[in-house]
This record gives sequence, structure tokens and C-alpha cells, in this order.
Amino acid sequence: MDENEALELLGRLLPAAPPGEVWWGDDAAAVDVPGGGRQLLLALDTVVAGVDADLSLTRLSDLGWKAMAVNLSDIAAMGGTPAHAVVSVAGLGARSLPDLYEGLLEASTRYGCPVVGGDLSSGEQLVVSVAVTGWSEGHAVLRSGASPGDTIWVTSPLGAAAAGLRCLRERAAKGRAGWARDGQLSPEQEALVSAHARPVPALAEGSAAKKVGATAMIDVSDGLATDLSRLARSSGVGFELAEVPVAPGATLLEALGGGDDYVLVFTLPPPVAPAPAFEAVGLRAPIPLGACVADTGRHHLGGVPLAVAGWEHVL
Amino acid sequence: MDENEALELLGRLLPAAPPGEVWWGDDAAAVDVPGGGRQLLLALDTVVAGVDADLSLTRLSDLGWKAMAVNLSDIAAMGGTPAHAVVSVAGLGARSLPDLYEGLLEASTRYGCPVVGGDLSSGEQLVVSVAVTGWSEGHAVLRSGASPGDTIWVTSPLGAAAAGLRCLRERAAKGRAGWARDGQLSPEQEALVSAHARPVPALAEGSAAKKVGATAMIDVSDGLATDLSRLARSSGVGFELAEVPVAPGATLLEALGGGDDYVLVFTLPPPVAPAPAFEAVGLRAPIPLGACVADTGRHHLGGVPLAVAGWEHVL
Repeated sequence: MDENEALELLGRLLPAAPPGEVWWGDDAAAVDVPGGGRQLLLALDTVVAGVDADLSLTRLSDLGWKAMAVNLSDIAAMGGTPAHAVVSVAGLGARSLPDLYEGLLEASTRYGCPVVGGDLSSGEQLVVSVAVTGWSEGHAVLRSGASPGDTIWVTSPLGAAAAGLRCLRERAAKGRAGWARDGQLSPEQEALVSAHARPVPALAEGSAAKKVGATAMIDVSDGLATDLSRLARSSGVGFELAEVPVAPGATLLEALGGGDDYVLVFTLPPPVAPAPAFEAVGLRAPIPLGACVADTGRHHLGGVPLAVAGWEHVL
Repeated sequence: MDENEALELLGRLLPAAPPGEVWWGDDAAAVDVPGGGRQLLLALDTVVAGVDADLSLTRLSDLGWKAMAVNLSDIAAMGGTPAHAVVSVAGLGARSLPDLYEGLLEASTRYGCPVVGGDLSSGEQLVVSVAVTGWSEGHAVLRSGASPGDTIWVTSPLGAAAAGLRCLRERAAKGRAGWARDGQLSPEQEALVSAHARPVPALAEGSAAKKVGATAMIDVSDGLATDLSRLARSSGVGFELAEVPVAPGATLLEALGGGDDYVLVFTLPPPVAPAPAFEAVGLRAPIPLGACVADTGRHHLGGVPLAVAGWEHVL
């Protein structure tokens, strides 16, 4: 049973959301609150050492950063603003706690999402769960709102995080501590390693995409091929991509199948061009990928079926 | 480093709450929301198999119930009403997921706290993290509001969960599957085992205590001695207990030191008697334990220092 099958099983177990809310199956849950006008967002993501992060290649502080950043990215993908976080840590000696929290609190502070509680447990393996709340003005941007004809955009070139991990693995194979910043990386490699170790949640981009009228949005956590397929399936559309922007130093395979980029993919009704709205708030212009099509079986890049699957958790 | 020391370390790492909010150090965080009049509560608790639950004595469905119930108990201890939950499961094969979720969703449905999302991860050990949100009308009831002279109350007799676990261990030692309900338990033992396997969050009791004017409140998760000491330390008071109600079939040691009872302990200004308010909504009358005193070093039962420590997580 792969991750998608397990998630579908879970989707069948869980209750259905009332109209206007989204519970299971998006980047975060979006629920109505008394008073109205806004939705409360709620996301929970877990980082397991040895599964989501290799501690021989990842500093504890980077793991802490990542555990916070992946949740903030879920809020970004709904077009929301983060509010508060709670953190559960299992299987980490108290002496190592400050290292983990250093990165976690750095991300928390930078993106305005204070850690307001949580717990500590013993355990055999380091498991860090972070839950975040956020707010959406009006309804959140879901995965399911794209229509045939909508254009598809990405907020940055892809594949940097996967290429950064490859970089660290190559260095480890040569006997160098993977995470040591010893000056032996080129600036391009530094950028790739940083994209892997300290992914940046695209909060400003998510807000800009919501303001400009994004019909659907998702963050790229498991690779463009997988995550865009999720958006397409939720929306009941297919897609035809013209080209995929690849980060400098990354490969096309890393751009399509590599996870952990945490850039945002969103769709717009065809006449809308997002660049002015993004550039007005100091953000790079989103990059066009292609368009949604009515044929749900069509997942093509340059006219060819896109068979590369994203990295899947093995349950 | 024991749990209290680790929690204190964490308290030093984490940011301080603005006035009127509580972040770290209570049963749940309580934060203000735009619009005012209410506070959003946020709790996160993790259950680790082999640490918080022995899978040879606990059914997966009971572990799922407990993972939800302990979080609902945190909301109860703030005098709040649960709203939504998100669930992270690491280290459980997909085939076993329905068993875990059976109990989890049963608690979720019974106490009106739908599971609206979460994630699945692989891992070597079963780790279930549940985060819940809740609402408090006006300010939540904190651990820190008790004053010398306040009376101390508990919502039920104590020690049942610890006695239930003892029961299961005794049966396991005789070679019987600990969790099998094979009719060989007396009704009293059934009640104890049920208190251990399916703890009941005291949500109605927490609301009633808030309405009647509780000055401080905490749930008993780590044993009365430990949790009442936490309330006393947070409030800057000591306490003098007259007697401790022991659940039928439990021992005094289990009532003082056993964890996982999830009853509520709260304090009231001396003239207030809580029984009428509780009985008016069909709840049993709270049981008086004693009173808070000004001497913070005084943690006494029947005039004798209460040296029994609650069960502590080992980090």
C-alpha cells in the first residue's frame, strides 16, 4: 500500500466536511468560525528522523526549521496567514532539545508563527510533529477549484531541494560531514543545499496568488508530478504543461520528481496575468507551466505523458 | 533530566505570551482572536506506543481513543469546548490504521470534535500526535489563578486508571491477553480497566467549574500529587489536603501517584459550593480535597508532607 492508497483509506474513514469548509484532503483544513468573514486554517505535519530527514546529512536545527516550515507551507498553499504553532517532540534527549528548537524557533520567528505549547515524550526514534493554525480572509484557496482552460503557474524554478540533497550525499560518499559548511561548496551548491536544509515557505506568494484570484493551489512537497496530479484530481481536470523551470544545478528529473521544494503551484482563469500583482509586493513573477484541460486522463509535458512519480512515503 | 526539568528547559526556550493569553505551561494554549469575547484554545499531545501505552495490554482502538481523549481533557481543563482535531500517525502499517481510527473517531464523535486532517508517516515505533482546537467563552481557566484560602475540589475519585492497568498486568502475568473482555473480570475490575483503556474527558465538568467561578484548574494526567503541585506552583500557593477520594478497587498510592485519571482538580473562592451548579446539569457533586495555603512549601495531606511523586516521563 503506497502513500496515496493509505491517504485514500484515511479519507474513507474520516467524516465529510460541511459545505464551505474543507477538512481532509487539502494542504490544511479550513473551518468556519463564529463571526464569519474568515476561516481558521489547521495543519499538522510530522517529520520522522531516518524517513523524512537523514540525521547524518541534516543538522538538528535544520530538522527543526523544516518541521516548522513544512507546516507554514501548508498555510501558504491555502493563501493564509500563519497564527500559532504547537510542537510535539518524541525520542530526543533533553540535551539535544535546544539544537532542534534553535531552527524551529528561527522559522517560527521569521514567519510570525509563535510556538505556544506542545509536549515531550520519550521514544526510540526522533519524531517531531508540528500543528499550526492560520487565518484566511474569506474562503481559503483549495486544490479543487481549477477548471479546464485555467492557466498553471509556479512561484519558483523546481528541483533545488532534491539537487541539494544529492550534493550532500555526494560529499558524504567522499567522507565529508554532509552538513558542514566548510567553504568547499560553490555558491550554486550552497543555494541548493540551503533549499534542502532550510526550505522557505512561500507565504507572501500564497497571499499574492489568492489576491490575484487563484482558482486552485498546492505546495510542492512530494514533487511537481505528484502534487500537480493531486491538484488535477481534486479539481477534476487534466493538464498540459509546455515546459518546467529547473533550478540552476538541478536536473529535469529532480524538478519533476524531487520533493521538498515547497514552492506553490496555482491556477488562474485564462485572462489573468499574475506578474504585476506579485512584482508590486516585491516578489518574482510566477512562471507559466501550461494549462488545465478537460481530459482528466491527460497529464502531459510537451505533448508526452508525464510518467515520473513523485517520491512517495512507504507505509 | 526528568520530565519537569525538561519542561522547564523548554519553557526557557519558548517565547512569552502577551498579557491575557497563555502559551506554554498550561493544559492548553489560550490565544485571543480578532473580534474578541472568546479565546481560541490549542493543545497537542502525543501517545508513544511502548511509553504511554503497552501494546500487549492495549488494543489499537483504545490507544486511538486515548490519543484523542487526553487532548480533549486538556480543553476540559481550560473550561473550554472542543472544536476540531488533526491527527498524525507515524509507524503504523496501513492495514492497522482502521483499528486505531475506530477508537479515535469514536471519541471524536462522542465529544463533538471532528478530525479534519492530519498525516501519515512511516517509522519504527507507533507515535500518534493529536492536536485539538477549542473555544473558551471569555478568558480560559488557568493553572495559575488560585489564591491562599481557595478551596480545592476534584470531579471524581482517583486512582481508577492506575488500578485498571494493575488489573491488566496481573492478568497478563497469568497468561491472559490483557485486553480481552472475556467475562472473567468482576464489574468493579471492568470499571477500572475501562477507566484505563477509555479515559473520559471531563468536558461537562470543566464547563461547570468555569461557570461556577473556578480560579484555577488542571487535569490529572500524571497523578494528583504531581498535577496539584503544578497548579500550586503556577499559582504561587501551597496546599493542605484533608482527604483524597479513592476509586473503589484502587489504592491510596494509585490515587495519589497514578496517572491517566483525567479527572479535573479546581479551586474556588471559599464561600462558593459547586454542588448545586454541577447537579443542575446532571453531574456528580465535586469532592472537596482541602484548601490552598500561603506557604508555597506546604504540600500536605492530613498534616503530613505528600512525598509521593507522580509518574514522570523519562527523557
